[in-house]
Amino acid sequence: MSYNKILVSLGGGPTAVINQSIVGVVLEARKCHQIDQIYGSMRGARGIIDEDFSDLTSETRQNLELVANTPSSALGATRDRPDHKYCMEMLRVIKAHEIGGFYYIGGNESTETVEIIAREARRTNYDLCCIHIPKTIDNDIACNDHTPGFPSAARFVAQAFMSVNLESRALPGVRLVVVMGRNAGFLTAASALGKKYPDDGPHLIYLPERPFVLDDFLAEVRSIHAEKGRCVVAISEGIRDAAGRSIVEDLAARAVAAGGHPAAPGTLADLLAHEVRSQLGIAEVSGLTLGYAQRSFVGCVSDVDQHEAREVGEKAVQYGVRGRLDGSVTIRRRGFYSVDYGLVPLADVGGRTRTMDDAFIAPSNTGVTDAFRFYLRPLLGSGMPDMYLLRPNRVPKREAAAAPTQDTAPAPRLCS
Amino acid sequence: MSYNKILVSLGGGPTAVINQSIVGVVLEARKCHQIDQIYGSMRGARGIIDEDFSDLTSETRQNLELVANTPSSALGATRDRPDHKYCMEMLRVIKAHEIGGFYYIGGNESTETVEIIAREARRTNYDLCCIHIPKTIDNDIACNDHTPGFPSAARFVAQAFMSVNLESRALPGVRLVVVMGRNAGFLTAASALGKKYPDDGPHLIYLPERPFVLDDFLAEVRSIHAEKGRCVVAISEGIRDAAGRSIVEDLAARAVAAGGHPAAPGTLADLLAHEVRSQLGIAEVSGLTLGYAQRSFVGCVSDVDQHEAREVGEKAVQYGVRGRLDGSVTIRRRGFYSVDYGLVPLADVGGRTRTMDDAFIAPSNTGVTDAFRFYLRPLLGSGMPDMYLLRPNRVPKREAAAAPTQDTAPAPRLCS
Repeated sequence: MSYNKILVSLGGGPTAVINQSIVGVVLEARKCHQIDQIYGSMRGARGIIDEDFSDLTSETRQNLELVANTPSSALGATRDRPDHKYCMEMLRVIKAHEIGGFYYIGGNESTETVEIIAREARRTNYDLCCIHIPKTIDNDIACNDHTPGFPSAARFVAQAFMSVNLESRALPGVRLVVVMGRNAGFLTAASALGKKYPDDGPHLIYLPERPFVLDDFLAEVRSIHAEKGRCVVAISEGIRDAAGRSIVEDLAARAVAAGGHPAAPGTLADLLAHEVRSQLGIAEVSGLTLGYAQRSFVGCVSDVDQHEAREVGEKAVQYGVRGRLDGSVTIRRRGFYSVDYGLVPLADVGGRTRTMDDAFIAPSNTGVTDAFRFYLRPLLGSGMPDMYLLRPNRVPKREAAAAPTQDTAPAPRLCS
Repeated sequence: MSYNKILVSLGGGPTAVINQSIVGVVLEARKCHQIDQIYGSMRGARGIIDEDFSDLTSETRQNLELVANTPSSALGATRDRPDHKYCMEMLRVIKAHEIGGFYYIGGNESTETVEIIAREARRTNYDLCCIHIPKTIDNDIACNDHTPGFPSAARFVAQAFMSVNLESRALPGVRLVVVMGRNAGFLTAASALGKKYPDDGPHLIYLPERPFVLDDFLAEVRSIHAEKGRCVVAISEGIRDAAGRSIVEDLAARAVAAGGHPAAPGTLADLLAHEVRSQLGIAEVSGLTLGYAQRSFVGCVSDVDQHEAREVGEKAVQYGVRGRLDGSVTIRRRGFYSVDYGLVPLADVGGRTRTMDDAFIAPSNTGVTDAFRFYLRPLLGSGMPDMYLLRPNRVPKREAAAAPTQDTAPAPRLCS
């Protein structure tokens, strides 16, 4: 038999638009005569194990729409990473509640969760439709042009770098800014969308797709700083050396070897700032870590991202209820700019990590190409702030400035 | 004689609306028949010493309006802090260029710069009108209800805490967030404007106006975390102990005494996070430093702040050109909500630091009062984002969750 109850849940951390996908599932499911009840699990996978469900069937449409526009997850989240045993527990609760549709919003790892549950449900002849709905700020899910959550985080990063660049114009020096993304550099690369004028920062971008060589980094920072008097650098938290070792661990180990304290070795931004200060002898160096604000910043959301996150939720229910299909919803790009959606087998998505295409990375390895800007710009949505400079119109100097201090006014001059 | 040239310059760091004040001066001065030329100094006081002036007289109005809406300073800034000798050099250049009006945008220290230059101009019979235009994100200038730059920074802080609070609802634990403001706690207190629901964070706010006691802090964090399972804390970068010593220096000294590295002792946020982790045994603790993004964040600006920053620039020129007065422009509040402007003697403002009124600080010392919320809310401007939660509607548990794992579907139940 097929059960007329569905469950929406999520794996991994929140994004600025995950509530859009939750609400997309709920409102679309309410239209389906096959569905009587819609449960949401609190705290993602953990809430399934704990049988901690909220019945969303009778939440007002008005409040659902308001929640959809609120960043972070209205159903909470968990740091648990379900393994096979954990998935079996989830399935046991799903069966106990006679749930017929499982809608799971998440990234790469979440696809594997859905795949295990789908397989075990089939093996035990339990009638369960399993749909994975893409979500991740890292943009690293295979088979997708991009994934909901990434565009809004990218917009925050672009706006933050506009701000850092404007600050750097006013107060020069070296500014190192660390951006999220352990395996894929998309979010760090988004910093380039904060550039407008030719000499705008970020002047250097370090991605996890390319090995990070500390000496090269120092030489590049030195060169930009010498040329422009300032240097804005975007650095992925996931940068690794040629052997694949994390740079933050390398630098922390160096600090400890130099007499440092293993318990609080500092952040990647602080550690790199210390290297620039001590090895290049530049006084004005600051390290900034954008941190988790970038994934749920209230008031900095892409409307394109909101619409698409809503649509992947709606499409998931259409595939699940009307098509009785298992799979992962995907976003495909059409034209400039439009998308449509598809459903691919869970196995095509699970266990694979998409990274930045070579065509997106500049030959210098420390920048992005126009192909990347063309790719990202439409995702940032409408109403992106712009920035403007005064046109230079320098006044000729008067030699008085070089003369010794005098306490009386200089004689009036004929030339103005 | 009176010279028909004016100079606009600035002291201290940029803000999100300082360009509004620059443009306010320029456009108002263009209307005055007494003024023929309007110079801006590049890099603030430093640009005066270096005779680095840009002639703004013929910049297009259209571009001035676009620049006005751009955060940070279009004229650059400097880290120099002018002393008496430095001010004498500035005056020498002002005289060499036959400048008759000096409009200086800045905070407390900048008032003293203007005062010295005004006094020395008078003493040497040089006809110079000197006006200080208020600006600081710290909101610590005497004689003002508030100061341009603060409302936009406060809006960023409020929106950042909305985001941190929503993240904390999704992924609990302890979140420590450090906010700018060395002497006055206004900006840290603005975190309270990110609260909506009764259990929203920040749950604790530590201001420089009250002595910081590490043991009390740890006890308060422990108590909130035990009660709510999470704790969001706003901490001023300027917190000090009862003897007036900086807490970050105290903690860094402790870390060094415990074998730490003096060169990279970590930020205040990281050091406090380390204390919470090690002394309270809470695993999920994060430290976040909002950093300089909070003062020029592109796309997070208060329209009220923009309008007022423009007006203090306009009023400055009216006082200077039409009134031939020296002084500091002030903002006074009228009603809920409206302001008007005044001019006070430079000596009334210089050398004084305004801090949070006692009436703004909760008796607990770790929160703010409704009087503060009432004071701050209108400054944040229109279009503040709002946030919404799902209404809880818990589903009764089914005992199956407690039963041992079974691989077959449970028998359908009569109760739904």
